Amino acid sequence: MPNDLVSQAMAGNARAIARLMTLAERGQPARALYGHAGRAHIAGVTGVPGSGKSTLVRALAGQARQRGLRVGVVAIDPSSPFSGGAILGDRIRMADLSTDDGVFIRSMASRGAMGGLSAAALDVVDVLDAAGFDLIMIETVGVGQDEIDIARAAHTVCVVSAPGMGDGVQAIKSGILEIADVHVVSKADKPEAQRTVSDLKEALSLGEHPAAGAWTPPVLASSADQGSGIGEVLDAILAHYAWLQSSAQLAVRVRAIAGRRLLKVVEDQVRNRLDLQQARAGDHVAQLVDRVARHELHPLQAAAEFLTND
Amino acid sequence: MPNDLVSQAMAGNARAIARLMTLAERGQPARALYGHAGRAHIAGVTGVPGSGKSTLVRALAGQARQRGLRVGVVAIDPSSPFSGGAILGDRIRMADLSTDDGVFIRSMASRGAMGGLSAAALDVVDVLDAAGFDLIMIETVGVGQDEIDIARAAHTVCVVSAPGMGDGVQAIKSGILEIADVHVVSKADKPEAQRTVSDLKEALSLGEHPAAGAWTPPVLASSADQGSGIGEVLDAILAHYAWLQSSAQLAVRVRAIAGRRLLKVVEDQVRNRLDLQQARAGDHVAQLVDRVARHELHPLQAAAEFLTND
Repeated sequence: MPNDLVSQAMAGNARAIARLMTLAERGQPARALYGHAGRAHIAGVTGVPGSGKSTLVRALAGQARQRGLRVGVVAIDPSSPFSGGAILGDRIRMADLSTDDGVFIRSMASRGAMGGLSAAALDVVDVLDAAGFDLIMIETVGVGQDEIDIARAAHTVCVVSAPGMGDGVQAIKSGILEIADVHVVSKADKPEAQRTVSDLKEALSLGEHPAAGAWTPPVLASSADQGSGIGEVLDAILAHYAWLQSSAQLAVRVRAIAGRRLLKVVEDQVRNRLDLQQARAGDHVAQLVDRVARHELHPLQAAAEFLTND
Repeated sequence: MPNDLVSQAMAGNARAIARLMTLAERGQPARALYGHAGRAHIAGVTGVPGSGKSTLVRALAGQARQRGLRVGVVAIDPSSPFSGGAILGDRIRMADLSTDDGVFIRSMASRGAMGGLSAAALDVVDVLDAAGFDLIMIETVGVGQDEIDIARAAHTVCVVSAPGMGDGVQAIKSGILEIADVHVVSKADKPEAQRTVSDLKEALSLGEHPAAGAWTPPVLASSADQGSGIGEVLDAILAHYAWLQSSAQLAVRVRAIAGRRLLKVVEDQVRNRLDLQQARAGDHVAQLVDRVARHELHPLQAAAEFLTND
């Protein structure tokens, strides 16, 4: 049954894609799918709330479509407490684009996914990847470890800053500045936008100087309302991927992403195992916890036993 | 050598205690010590920055000394980037109390400890516990998961709120309200203090009603400057521990603490293992990461292999 879904999704069936995404959100990704993923260019678009990420992502999706790319979007929406609400949102948006099967937009509620938001989001991305979308954008709020982890699972990380939101550049404060491959100052029609661009450039020049042949993250201004700068942002995102490929950095990054993704899954599983098993008296984990509680075993010793024998 | 230190620390030797704490901070706790710990009453004192935690803890320590209790304090100081600085702070404070070996105060820099702040802090507490201190207070800022985890590792959690710090009660926002066994509104000499007490009481009454025989967290006001209310706060902290013992809830809580502590250590170790080993090409973890990167193995499958075979 999941294998049927996989072949249907790979043939572009939107229902099958949506169904596999729902399974992924529930922590039951179709593993057969993973072997068919790994070909798309994955771009993370992140920024503080109000930075205009969503508008930019939609403008970028339109631009990429014009260039003939098949585009997927996975939006992690922290304001949505139930995935039900997010799915409803999808339907509305998808209806607008129903004549275009070259675009697929999925919203995920950040509180909806069980078994780790990060793992679920990347499994959802895999569905679009295996279904043959060329460019997949993951939109996340750049606040909170989970969201930052998701952004870092992209080949290209695009950090969006809005002009005139308090003192200086918010991205600096939220700690996502250093993970950016492309900086975008949104709402470039605002008078303060140029100031934010220079603030960002200054902040970046204070950092380490890039080595020869390294990628220098550009700072671009865009206005989704006016439609200005969108092409340049897409150019930069695609240029970064081309640089990754030509410099052999793609393999390095893909490996780092795989390592972090494996770590996340292992952590989720360890947490589940130590949680679930505590309920069952007498089993190995319960015994370990009891021996720690009775001070018979130091947590380091119990951890070693858990990791070797469990 | 560590075993010599352990017997010296248990005999009350301050140098041996300090040395064992330094080892614990470096992720090398003397495991022999753990078997001698588990007798002290551990109280976590937490609150947002500026809530007056430190002043309260020192007043409580003085009050507890007057009652003949041997008192240890472990203060997690996020403002201190180097444990060196924190240690210097200790010496100054310890010098003031140098004639009293019934008090031991240790500051830890939250950024200093390697291998997990939470694990290190609890290993430092163990040193005081094994050295026979009766009441050990852990002072942490109630912001950030690590700090909240540390507070939750105490038998009795005391949450401090300062009056008049913005809208309403900060503890509500930081999500530490529900872990409190005792609420303290500090700086009771301020005119807004009574308002904060009623705000807190109202917020608490909106929560679930406690079951019969359950502990109802009291809301107390204190002023360390005026010396008012300190005795009542200490009474409440000790009364909570007495309730834990009489209701058999102590064993339940100790087990939950042991479970969370084990989980933390396992997570730290998993993170280290997946990190360190990535450097060594060809080993099992590196191979797993490579297979995930090549999309040969889903992260869930790799995690299962890591957890069973590694």
